[in-house]
Amino acid sequence: MRTTTGWRATGPMALRRVSLERRDLRPDDVAVRVDYCGVCHTDLHAVRDYDQHAKAPLVPGHEFTGVVTETGPEVTALSVGDRVGVGNIVDSCGVCAMCEAGQENFCHSFPALTYGGVDRKDGSTTLGGYSREYVVRDAFAYPLPSGLDPAAAAPLLCAGVTVWEPLRSLGVGPGSRVAVAGLGGLGHLAVKMAVALGAATTVISRTRDKDEDARRLGADDLIASADPQRMAAARDSFDVVIDTISAPHDLAPYLRSVAMDGTLSLLGYLGPVTVEVMDLLVGRKRLGSAGSGGRPATAEMLRFCADNGIVADVEVLPSSQVHTALDRLRRNDVRHRFVLDMSDLG
Amino acid sequence: MRTTTGWRATGPMALRRVSLERRDLRPDDVAVRVDYCGVCHTDLHAVRDYDQHAKAPLVPGHEFTGVVTETGPEVTALSVGDRVGVGNIVDSCGVCAMCEAGQENFCHSFPALTYGGVDRKDGSTTLGGYSREYVVRDAFAYPLPSGLDPAAAAPLLCAGVTVWEPLRSLGVGPGSRVAVAGLGGLGHLAVKMAVALGAATTVISRTRDKDEDARRLGADDLIASADPQRMAAARDSFDVVIDTISAPHDLAPYLRSVAMDGTLSLLGYLGPVTVEVMDLLVGRKRLGSAGSGGRPATAEMLRFCADNGIVADVEVLPSSQVHTALDRLRRNDVRHRFVLDMSDLG
Repeated sequence: MRTTTGWRATGPMALRRVSLERRDLRPDDVAVRVDYCGVCHTDLHAVRDYDQHAKAPLVPGHEFTGVVTETGPEVTALSVGDRVGVGNIVDSCGVCAMCEAGQENFCHSFPALTYGGVDRKDGSTTLGGYSREYVVRDAFAYPLPSGLDPAAAAPLLCAGVTVWEPLRSLGVGPGSRVAVAGLGGLGHLAVKMAVALGAATTVISRTRDKDEDARRLGADDLIASADPQRMAAARDSFDVVIDTISAPHDLAPYLRSVAMDGTLSLLGYLGPVTVEVMDLLVGRKRLGSAGSGGRPATAEMLRFCADNGIVADVEVLPSSQVHTALDRLRRNDVRHRFVLDMSDLG
Repeated sequence: MRTTTGWRATGPMALRRVSLERRDLRPDDVAVRVDYCGVCHTDLHAVRDYDQHAKAPLVPGHEFTGVVTETGPEVTALSVGDRVGVGNIVDSCGVCAMCEAGQENFCHSFPALTYGGVDRKDGSTTLGGYSREYVVRDAFAYPLPSGLDPAAAAPLLCAGVTVWEPLRSLGVGPGSRVAVAGLGGLGHLAVKMAVALGAATTVISRTRDKDEDARRLGADDLIASADPQRMAAARDSFDVVIDTISAPHDLAPYLRSVAMDGTLSLLGYLGPVTVEVMDLLVGRKRLGSAGSGGRPATAEMLRFCADNGIVADVEVLPSSQVHTALDRLRRNDVRHRFVLDMSDLG
């Protein structure tokens, strides 16, 4: 086994710097020195809910960039020194219909998650990117196109592809009318990508507080969801509404803002949601969701971001300030994504 | 005013033959002698729930065919003697974005329903097609293409366009994989239309009882929803699932049968429905609905049905047997639609 250092949960909202083991490289593995790891809402939920008596260890982190430091004998696509990114899945069966379609994130055998997942070979619990080294199958380490800042690119690997997939699968392009509800880690990337795809892009936020921020990101307009008249005026307006709001909320006002034959895509992990069929029927609207991405879409998204100068707006903190990052994320006190700098782990 | 005869509700599940008034023709009105009127689930719900103390009169019926007997002075598209059909809406504002898009069924001012609706000019309650005469704005009386049997074509005007709209808006054509859940009035027409559009078509029914029926309608297969193994094997199989089941039911098994980027379209009036976001996320599936149709789609659907020899499978009863029809419909004892013959009303 290999040894590295990382941040392991010890209880709710508590992490401790510890020594971690990584597997010896399999023939198709690469070892990655983790430089930067984004702080995702999923990490916050996992740490907040972590039971100190839990048997499975928790090391969060599933959007990171770094440098390849070693390669297994069968690895051909990556070399030592390559800059790579890793997202929220690190393996899949490779043979089911979803994997064959390049949607490993929907693998029928369930993909191996980057942390809290189950390694497909040895059954161990995967430990995430809040650590200095990660060992991963080559197929799930994506070459980072040059020109992308490694710190600001880290959130592309989870937040980025999560918004990219619905924008692409729903055909967003020039002439599309897109609204993005919520302007956090997911939302601000959705705005940047929708604008770069050529869509007329509107932000829906609770108040007008983020108006300037929205326009700086390229949005044409901001609608305050707390203003019923403005929301009513936006009826049937958007071909695609990307809803990144992470807390349960009434979907009806957002569905009403969807144009005929358009889609409200929910990106928050909201659990069960209830809608009135009549709110779908009138205008033949659709409710959808998306999350994470397959290998082809992830590579395509990284290329698109490099071509269009898109990275996340990040606040970089040394990994020793992980508690500060989680606590401020809990209070939505970040514009728009925290990234941990792992160099303090040695 | 004009006088005709029809079936008016007097209490729950009770109708009485009465004399009814129709308005004198406005300049753009036509008078239609109603020959055949389909018995829709909506009629059953309306009569079942009718409160004998209700102030608004109830005469059901919103899918009927007949012959134009008189035309207002401004009517140019229709002539006395023309065979026409009328569906579930008889007027709309004509100026909102939905009306301009030819989706009068989604009119922002709410379309005037064929019965139980509000006349846009005089505010009276509309009385439906369970009657010998109907007076309607010319724009909402559709010329019936020759070759369509007037009795069997009556259900096309509501059930037919209700299944046509989602099939068309979801792009069903050669190569599409379509499932139709429920084989009643809507379902059997959805199967016929999907087959004629060139789709590989599967029926999902509770048991295998309707296997022969499904194949006679042109379906390639029938899956029993009560067989969990068969349903599991159908995972990610259909680009479009048209769900015509009218009673509340668990949507999860149907969502699972939807293929990646496909849509589950709910056509039953189910009120609020609950889905797990994860069931939408995995496979980027979408939940939608549709109901009724706009004027262009209704005309297109009638043309398509005439070209492809599609009418409803009907059991025609004299209108005096309306109680039998409603009672048997309540017990799902019809294959697949009752049509009332209005000639016994004189």
